[in-house]
Amino acid sequence: MKVLITGAGGFLGRKLATRLAADGAMGIDGKPHAIERLILADLIAPEAPPANFEIRCEAADVTSPSAAAHLVGKGVDVVFHLAAIVSADAEANFDKGMSVNFDATRHLLQACRANGGARLVFASSVAVYGRTPDGVIREDTWPQPQTSYGSQKIMGEVLVGDMSRKGFVDGRSVRLPTVVVRPGKPNKAASTFASSIIREPLQGDEALLPVGEDAAMYVASPRRIVENLLIAADLPSAAWGTDRSLMLPGVTVSVADMLATLEAVGGAEARTRVRRERDPAVEKIVAGWPSVFEIDRARRMGFEADESYRAIVEAFMEDDMVR
Amino acid sequence: MKVLITGAGGFLGRKLATRLAADGAMGIDGKPHAIERLILADLIAPEAPPANFEIRCEAADVTSPSAAAHLVGKGVDVVFHLAAIVSADAEANFDKGMSVNFDATRHLLQACRANGGARLVFASSVAVYGRTPDGVIREDTWPQPQTSYGSQKIMGEVLVGDMSRKGFVDGRSVRLPTVVVRPGKPNKAASTFASSIIREPLQGDEALLPVGEDAAMYVASPRRIVENLLIAADLPSAAWGTDRSLMLPGVTVSVADMLATLEAVGGAEARTRVRRERDPAVEKIVAGWPSVFEIDRARRMGFEADESYRAIVEAFMEDDMVR
Repeated sequence: MKVLITGAGGFLGRKLATRLAADGAMGIDGKPHAIERLILADLIAPEAPPANFEIRCEAADVTSPSAAAHLVGKGVDVVFHLAAIVSADAEANFDKGMSVNFDATRHLLQACRANGGARLVFASSVAVYGRTPDGVIREDTWPQPQTSYGSQKIMGEVLVGDMSRKGFVDGRSVRLPTVVVRPGKPNKAASTFASSIIREPLQGDEALLPVGEDAAMYVASPRRIVENLLIAADLPSAAWGTDRSLMLPGVTVSVADMLATLEAVGGAEARTRVRRERDPAVEKIVAGWPSVFEIDRARRMGFEADESYRAIVEAFMEDDMVR
Repeated sequence: MKVLITGAGGFLGRKLATRLAADGAMGIDGKPHAIERLILADLIAPEAPPANFEIRCEAADVTSPSAAAHLVGKGVDVVFHLAAIVSADAEANFDKGMSVNFDATRHLLQACRANGGARLVFASSVAVYGRTPDGVIREDTWPQPQTSYGSQKIMGEVLVGDMSRKGFVDGRSVRLPTVVVRPGKPNKAASTFASSIIREPLQGDEALLPVGEDAAMYVASPRRIVENLLIAADLPSAAWGTDRSLMLPGVTVSVADMLATLEAVGGAEARTRVRRERDPAVEKIVAGWPSVFEIDRARRMGFEADESYRAIVEAFMEDDMVR
């Protein structure tokens, strides 16, 4: 079986590639299939993780239809489409966001269609949701994105759904909760504090907390996201039916709970490394993110959330912490 | 003020053009503005209705970015974007549907953006909705289209919403109920019977009824749709807020009520011209259309439905019936 990962140089792409390289197989319709070839694509060719089968690393810009067609080629069976520009970038650069977050998705879908209908897992986002009257997201809540990133992701989902309905592709869109704890450095995302107030103190550095302790988020670990991406690819087409979009399960956690967990795993000293410096702009953005979900379709289909917020922090300590 | 109508050769486009030509003005933010120039665009240049101001008729294919840019030019203040291919065509010809129903919308929005942000009214459709558990469409029902036409319209709506939020354009998407009674001949649309079982018998011809009497639809007259398109253009930006999409009000009517109305206005003889010939394929499609709407946002904003189904039939007799 041939598998393509776009955005394979990103932090989730690298984790997924490493996992597939180590396993040498993945489930399709509940049965393990050996991977003959793994294609890792990003703007800069990613590094290949060690594997006992062929890994091809390609520098490719999937905003070009011909690059998408070349990558999918005649033989790719499964595409994990993770390539995207992040929320802040899409908001500042509308046309770039349309090109990377929407057009590239369209080109890959068309390449899969030309290829006889590969299975495609599209990484969408909790950002497709806007505000709701009571702040709760339910199965039938109409995603009304309030960002260009969320708008581009929902347009991609609609296209995945329609082209799957027509039998052109076998697509599945999964909306990722906020992924924590990210490895690396703080970035300009409004959500960056949710990773940095755990990562930095545990690594001995100071972190900034721009929001109050009652702010809440819906989160999942990178480890759990990789599991759920594999489940999304594995499930038979019939399990998705006519609704090809799904909110992945996460854990609702308040900043107060994040700090208590930091202290529980890292000691009182770690907690003192969190410096409070409220930023009204960030507080406003974070307050607009839904944190309560009354959605059980994903769980009925076999997707799982992390066991607890503490399990998310422990996964970071095991997988990514720089000691 | 300069006004552009795309799809101006279609039956709604002609009615809107005729109305604007006769009025010589339209409301913007509640105040009448004289129209200096009306541009009527379609694949074949439409005919100009009589007017006391300049009407320019253009043959243009708005699936081309340069044609869209040319039409909007530097001076257009208001765009009524009605150009589309219909549901059955979009379902049979996916790529053509993407091009006409989605890409052209994107090109016009980009042309408006380049132009400093014209006001754009996008004709969307009740077809954006899929089935709901109880068959009722509410304010927060997530449109899950089950056709390519509905998918392309909802993607267009998302883009109208996001580009309006960013201030690139001042867009408004209105979802049209099924428009009856259409002038002309029956076509291949599954909904064609809803016009033909009134139009043909009143004009002395026979019509086919492919569904049972309990089938129900959500309908509006062409006359009412033209009114509501003008209201959509008139309302100030603030009246739309962050939600630029709106389901227009309609009238819920069963086939039994349609036939009773036909008899009431056309006599028992007219009713005998309706020949029953059930078509399970059409019945299935019509059963999937929502007919019950618990939505009052449009009414709060000043949009209205026809007074009754009988009023819709009488509007046809006054405006379009061939005697």
